[in-house]
Amino acid sequence: MVTVRDGEIINVRLNEDATAVVLLDQTLLPAQTKYLELDGLEELREAIVSLRVRGAPAIGIFAAFALYVLSAQTKTTDFAAFQDELKENSARLDSARPTAVNLSKQLRRMELFAEALAGCPIPDIINAMREEAVKIQLEDIEMCKAISEFGVSLIEDGFGVMTHCNAGPIATSKYGTALGPILLAHERGRRIQVFSCETRPLLQGARLTTYELFSAGVDVTLICDNMASIVMNEGKIDAIFVGCDRVALNGDTANKVGTSGLAVLAKHYMIPFYVCCPSSTIDPGCASGDEIEIELRDPQEIKDMFFETPVALENIKCYNPSFDVTGHGLITAIITEKGICRPPYSKSLAQFSSMENGK
Amino acid sequence: MVTVRDGEIINVRLNEDATAVVLLDQTLLPAQTKYLELDGLEELREAIVSLRVRGAPAIGIFAAFALYVLSAQTKTTDFAAFQDELKENSARLDSARPTAVNLSKQLRRMELFAEALAGCPIPDIINAMREEAVKIQLEDIEMCKAISEFGVSLIEDGFGVMTHCNAGPIATSKYGTALGPILLAHERGRRIQVFSCETRPLLQGARLTTYELFSAGVDVTLICDNMASIVMNEGKIDAIFVGCDRVALNGDTANKVGTSGLAVLAKHYMIPFYVCCPSSTIDPGCASGDEIEIELRDPQEIKDMFFETPVALENIKCYNPSFDVTGHGLITAIITEKGICRPPYSKSLAQFSSMENGK
Repeated sequence: MVTVRDGEIINVRLNEDATAVVLLDQTLLPAQTKYLELDGLEELREAIVSLRVRGAPAIGIFAAFALYVLSAQTKTTDFAAFQDELKENSARLDSARPTAVNLSKQLRRMELFAEALAGCPIPDIINAMREEAVKIQLEDIEMCKAISEFGVSLIEDGFGVMTHCNAGPIATSKYGTALGPILLAHERGRRIQVFSCETRPLLQGARLTTYELFSAGVDVTLICDNMASIVMNEGKIDAIFVGCDRVALNGDTANKVGTSGLAVLAKHYMIPFYVCCPSSTIDPGCASGDEIEIELRDPQEIKDMFFETPVALENIKCYNPSFDVTGHGLITAIITEKGICRPPYSKSLAQFSSMENGK
Repeated sequence: MVTVRDGEIINVRLNEDATAVVLLDQTLLPAQTKYLELDGLEELREAIVSLRVRGAPAIGIFAAFALYVLSAQTKTTDFAAFQDELKENSARLDSARPTAVNLSKQLRRMELFAEALAGCPIPDIINAMREEAVKIQLEDIEMCKAISEFGVSLIEDGFGVMTHCNAGPIATSKYGTALGPILLAHERGRRIQVFSCETRPLLQGARLTTYELFSAGVDVTLICDNMASIVMNEGKIDAIFVGCDRVALNGDTANKVGTSGLAVLAKHYMIPFYVCCPSSTIDPGCASGDEIEIELRDPQEIKDMFFETPVALENIKCYNPSFDVTGHGLITAIITEKGICRPPYSKSLAQFSSMENGK
């Protein structure tokens, strides 16, 4: 069904008879490699809420497959009724996480795609939706390749590179966004040393990024988030690459919490700070970072998750924002599949955003 | 034996017959409040290595008591032999951690104290050493009180305050250094909101600081270290208070890893950054932060400690510096028991340092 090379780990795909989404459960990595087969609305939504699938592009791909699988379960032959169900499923999936623009975007794409087929037999629409979801995934692979090619031009032999959270193959479809240039630099024989910030509270850097880089043979060192400053100060870092979940038209970017702190440090230590993302992450409806809603997650993630026993008393309050906004003034360049955007972002981004979004 | 108020938690003291050091095991907090009774050289040293006692002042007090307890076990009546044993024990304890100046300092004080009594009967020297160790603890209590008084002048009603790691009563003797001003501000009825950074990898902020502040009735919120930037950017913080383990004569300070990152963020967000410490932490033998040796600790602390299962593959490298150096240019003021030092630190610190150390 999925037309990528045999033997590769694929984080999101359809099962044999295309009745369920097969998902690599990211919450269990690296200790356990477990694939889930999901076909119910609530379990599909839960996979997004609980970060079994995470990373903006991967969420978008997963949501497209999910919407197809749910649509294929329809019993109606009436297009209006079919569309009502579709919109209901889409809205429910969309409510799973507020910050990632790709979730809304790919769901909307699938909705519009179905709408354009109004009048066709429902089974044909469903078949076409499956192909469209696969197309979304293949487009993502192409896009990550292109981002990696632009990004690799910024990594020289001997570079120390820092990254945060996980923007590798597991978070996308293949190659990754922030990890793409790093993986490509390694493939091309450039000797690089990567420092991966563990990324509390969910430890995506420790669990996923080191796993992906180590598997690819890249020299990777794990640090706690609060060690970024000493590592930069010791001269170990020549460039920082991060992914992102939403880009405003002025260049402000939302990414995993801690990103803005790294950007401030990078400026202080005079290290280039690069954001890698598909141009679809540029939100034409968002003028600046002030408009980006920041998801607040369960305080228990900080105190309980992964730990043998809770690390703070039960009645201690926690503040757990999942993202933060990095001001455009702290970003050296934004690397998309269409090219490298440099300040002033209001100009460089608008060009790429309009190409993609037609607004 | 210990002359502090009844009913208080005392982290370090002597047992009833003064033959062992009774230590509140900080590694088990907050889940478990367990006191250890230690009288062997290696187990006393291990308590420092494994951070069962931590915080520069607490380590100094513990080491003084430990050296007394070990000296009291002597079988010799010859002063030269007694002194040889003393120096050997002292050197072994001193090797437990390289960065904290208080450890060396209080051990040296005990050595010199005993040396000055050369010629007295050994039992009398041992008795006097016990009194000297208790004196070190009482002096620390007085000192923390004084630091708190100077520091509280910098906290206004309605302030949001951030702190890192643990520089509270558990890390000192009572009151604490960085937490002293906060606890005092609360006692005096100022409404404050404290954000405690969890402080990876050993989570002293989560485990100890929130525990101490919550116990004292202070409004405290726990965050992950990488959330400091968003919390500052959201305008929630009016002042940052941290402790420190060593101050160079130019004002560079070594403290728990992550401190330098907070200081860079504080400068970026224009928030005052205060370092609280006894003047004994000023090292007259250290001209700048470049001379401060940074302790590298076991990589397993990052991957395994506290976690149910390791959070990264076994063969992933980790870099685990325990401290970092905050450049003096990032520090608004250094608060000691003798007063508040402001830039230029080469002048303001020299004054206090020379008073204490006679150099």
